[in-house]
Amino acid sequence: MTKIGFVGLGIMGSPMAGHLVAAGHDVTGFDLNSAALERLEVQGGRAAESVAEAFRGAEVVITMLPNHPQVEEVVFGNSLEPGALLIDMSTIRPATSLAIAAKHPRSLDAPVSGGETGAKQASLSIMVGGDEADFADAKPILDVLGKTIVHVGPHGAGQVVKAANQLMVGGIYALVAEAIVLLEASGVDPKAGLDVLAGGLAANRILDLKRESMIAREFQPGFRIDLHHKDMGIALDAARQVDVALPVTGLIASLVAAGRAQGYGSLDHSALLKVIENFSGRAS
Amino acid sequence: MTKIGFVGLGIMGSPMAGHLVAAGHDVTGFDLNSAALERLEVQGGRAAESVAEAFRGAEVVITMLPNHPQVEEVVFGNSLEPGALLIDMSTIRPATSLAIAAKHPRSLDAPVSGGETGAKQASLSIMVGGDEADFADAKPILDVLGKTIVHVGPHGAGQVVKAANQLMVGGIYALVAEAIVLLEASGVDPKAGLDVLAGGLAANRILDLKRESMIAREFQPGFRIDLHHKDMGIALDAARQVDVALPVTGLIASLVAAGRAQGYGSLDHSALLKVIENFSGRAS
Amino acid sequence: MTKIGFVGLGIMGSPMAGHLVAAGHDVTGFDLNSAALERLEVQGGRAAESVAEAFRGAEVVITMLPNHPQVEEVVFGNSLEPGALLIDMSTIRPATSLAIAAKHPRSLDAPVSGGETGAKQASLSIMVGGDEADFADAKPILDVLGKTIVHVGPHGAGQVVKAANQLMVGGIYALVAEAIVLLEASGVDPKAGLDVLAGGLAANRILDLKRESMIAREFQPGFRIDLHHKDMGIALDAARQVDVALPVTGLIASLVAAGRAQGYGSLDHSALLKVIENFSGRAS
Amino acid sequence: MTKIGFVGLGIMGSPMAGHLVAAGHDVTGFDLNSAALERLEVQGGRAAESVAEAFRGAEVVITMLPNHPQVEEVVFGNSLEPGALLIDMSTIRPATSLAIAAKHPRSLDAPVSGGETGAKQASLSIMVGGDEADFADAKPILDVLGKTIVHVGPHGAGQVVKAANQLMVGGIYALVAEAIVLLEASGVDPKAGLDVLAGGLAANRILDLKRESMIAREFQPGFRIDLHHKDMGIALDAARQVDVALPVTGLIASLVAAGRAQGYGSLDHSALLKVIENFSGRAS
Repeated sequence: MTKIGFVGLGIMGSPMAGHLVAAGHDVTGFDLNSAALERLEVQGGRAAESVAEAFRGAEVVITMLPNHPQVEEVVFGNSLEPGALLIDMSTIRPATSLAIAAKHPRSLDAPVSGGETGAKQASLSIMVGGDEADFADAKPILDVLGKTIVHVGPHGAGQVVKAANQLMVGGIYALVAEAIVLLEASGVDPKAGLDVLAGGLAANRILDLKRESMIAREFQPGFRIDLHHKDMGIALDAARQVDVALPVTGLIASLVAAGRAQGYGSLDHSALLKVIENFSGRAS
Repeated sequence: MTKIGFVGLGIMGSPMAGHLVAAGHDVTGFDLNSAALERLEVQGGRAAESVAEAFRGAEVVITMLPNHPQVEEVVFGNSLEPGALLIDMSTIRPATSLAIAAKHPRSLDAPVSGGETGAKQASLSIMVGGDEADFADAKPILDVLGKTIVHVGPHGAGQVVKAANQLMVGGIYALVAEAIVLLEASGVDPKAGLDVLAGGLAANRILDLKRESMIAREFQPGFRIDLHHKDMGIALDAARQVDVALPVTGLIASLVAAGRAQGYGSLDHSALLKVIENFSGRAS
Repeated sequence: MTKIGFVGLGIMGSPMAGHLVAAGHDVTGFDLNSAALERLEVQGGRAAESVAEAFRGAEVVITMLPNHPQVEEVVFGNSLEPGALLIDMSTIRPATSLAIAAKHPRSLDAPVSGGETGAKQASLSIMVGGDEADFADAKPILDVLGKTIVHVGPHGAGQVVKAANQLMVGGIYALVAEAIVLLEASGVDPKAGLDVLAGGLAANRILDLKRESMIAREFQPGFRIDLHHKDMGIALDAARQVDVALPVTGLIASLVAAGRAQGYGSLDHSALLKVIENFSGRAS
Repeated sequence: MTKIGFVGLGIMGSPMAGHLVAAGHDVTGFDLNSAALERLEVQGGRAAESVAEAFRGAEVVITMLPNHPQVEEVVFGNSLEPGALLIDMSTIRPATSLAIAAKHPRSLDAPVSGGETGAKQASLSIMVGGDEADFADAKPILDVLGKTIVHVGPHGAGQVVKAANQLMVGGIYALVAEAIVLLEASGVDPKAGLDVLAGGLAANRILDLKRESMIAREFQPGFRIDLHHKDMGIALDAARQVDVALPVTGLIASLVAAGRAQGYGSLDHSALLKVIENFSGRAS
């Protein structure tokens, strides 16, 4: 049993904290939303009245927050116990993870993929950056939350891998969208066409999971465009930080931004199809 | 046994014609290269001295040529027997397939994917456009050449699906390349990073088959950049033909053109990694 | 006085032929449109009943046609008099100009800019490719039609310069459009903002001539998106022909194609603003 | 005579502070670089030992700093005198200008264009955002520093206009670069070609000022790629802030980032030509 402080009990953090309680850990959580705190108490955890209270006495602190400003406020505005291990599971820019590590060397950046479903089913993929020894200490706790837990490199590496994941996912959605628009405009049944693509070198999981819903224009999230927009910003920031120029990532970021700007922010990221459709004057 | 005229006995056409002979068909072939003709005779086929001779008496004519000008020259410059079925297996722009169909309604566009290996192993994927009845007639012959044979729609539809395939393949290569460059520049082991991506929503066949060779900078073809450059031209042409605007496809076409312009035309299309590397000043 | 055959008496060709008649030349013209032929007779020229008749006896043949297929049909389907000079003033891809020159070495590619107004006022800019001696012979005739007549290089060079012009014009329109959208969305008066830009390093003629009409969303042509779409295709083709990769040109081509696909083909090319607006969800 | 605190005495700030002293103002300056402080004393100003000292007693505070973190540190880490007017002349993201205005309503964002030469010759263009009354108060001081002083809108508007300027300048450089590469690869004299473009609708100041040096591959700054890279980051940030999607700006940002990544950061921004050349395999 580990004494854990958990800050950020939203859609992702709430079920994650619940799993930790269920696994026998002593979890004290904090969130600005009082309903989230009540939920934690129902799950068997303790509700703190402040971040500071959640940090107090914690051997491990987990943060699961919307973006880097919230992480900075929580982490730089409060003191961890000496020797405590900080696991930031938020998806933020690598530069902030490095800044955190500069202040708290005993920290890990550990963003996840798998979304709400993965959080509820404890089947998240977790990409971890930081020191090997800290990863070893965190592993039993992360095992409670996910299925694929990989130590990918030093501080910040977890965020970089997450950024690479998001640029690839966004890009493949855009490519599937362009294929659908081309097929439909050419009078080809998109299902027949994509079936062929899914059997060859172009095969990919998004085609497998989403081609039917995309062709049917069903865009319930899943993972919202708004969140993917945030993540493309992180990918651009990560590239800028290490002075690489990624032209496709730049264009995908524009397309995802367009999705949000056109009012599809609350739809699934597969709604990039609507952006490409509108661009081609084929509003459905 | 069908009497088949086969025009274009290159890297792809030669093994394909061989399979047809081996399956018991009466194949008369033509190619401008005399070595190709000798190869056909060794395989048990007959060598014609002209396209006209290959067409003469043929119930089925198959063309497997580099691009639309060659197809136009062969098909518009010669007469098929009345009632003969033309199967053009070249990868060309859909507009030419439609022009052929306007002159020879009994024709199919039937481009393939799977490359030299697929041609040799008779495991090609074949995307067929044209009339249902003609597809039914062609099916037994195409079954000799490939494993996945799909009728995807009317005349030109085969080429459109092939174009969609090539834009998606080119795009995914570019995305993998940008991911590798970002990971390496950030000091993250690219293998560890891509292993994580290959286990999640970003999973795709190119990651599966090519990530190790790409990380090792091994770019033996495979499918050459020069050919992919030709195919991206077809994709742009197909989009223009039906008045759709595909921004990602346009950018991928620029990247593939850059690959050729930078001297990588004879390398595998995974060498898009070099284009992204050079762009980011990280020549390896 | 020169005996001139003039093929293509449309919006541009008609006033141009009229200027040549007025300058004392013996002009025989042809067009598929009979009204155009009557107009030429009113101007004092002679109407031919076929291209062949217009070519017969002509010392100079001028073609002013929509695109390369028409030029190829007219030029390759008919015979010029021995020693006659062909001046193709159509905007077409450089490859066709080179193919024409291969057959008729005594030819010039001489596309124009300045549009309908320039044709009517005989104030066109004319970019000429071909041999120096032929340019010298053509110069007195071209002087009747334009104000700036420049010999820019060998066969095809005129088309290349025209293509460079069109990619730059399209690109600057897109940049002005993005500036307007950014300013307006930020609550900044676009007129005040663009006034500043027009006074600095960003100054350009499009800002000078079009910023007020663009801010007012007045898009009467001018030069239609449909024509600019054709010209961007030529620019891409010209780049492909000489194996250069032009990423910005590729993106601008997508934006112009989107303009046409979204139904703005008959509007002025400054209507690229609508494409950028729609992309940003700010339909006006 | 106004009592002015001036923070940031670098390449731009130093001559600007000198002009203010020369105009009779009482200037106390601060910079981390002691040579800059000595220079100010030679000019007749007073050197402060801290930002706080420079702020003390100042009726007007001017900041001229590299980017938003420095501005935030100076402005949020120190107290202005009650009623003092803050004029931030740094080029930073609009969001920071708004944050400053939220704390110090009596502030103006007043970025400049015109570079080192403009600073030395007091010929800067100054784009000012903020309240009308504050602009009126600042005007006599800004008149000492520049020639074109425009109030473009509320807080942040100055930065937005500067961002729009930089995206347009970067974009036009890229277009000129693509035109040069296309012309040269096609065997057309780029000077002859660009001369024609400079006489038509494509005319722009960059063509006028820079086409000869670009063709000659002379890239002494001027305005460095590194600075333009920073400014493209601001443009992307400004677009993101107001939820607009600017695809051309995104691509230009990638090209400028590539310029820096390829080692041209210290060259003039016209060195975007090298990026396009390298992309097209035409290293000069």
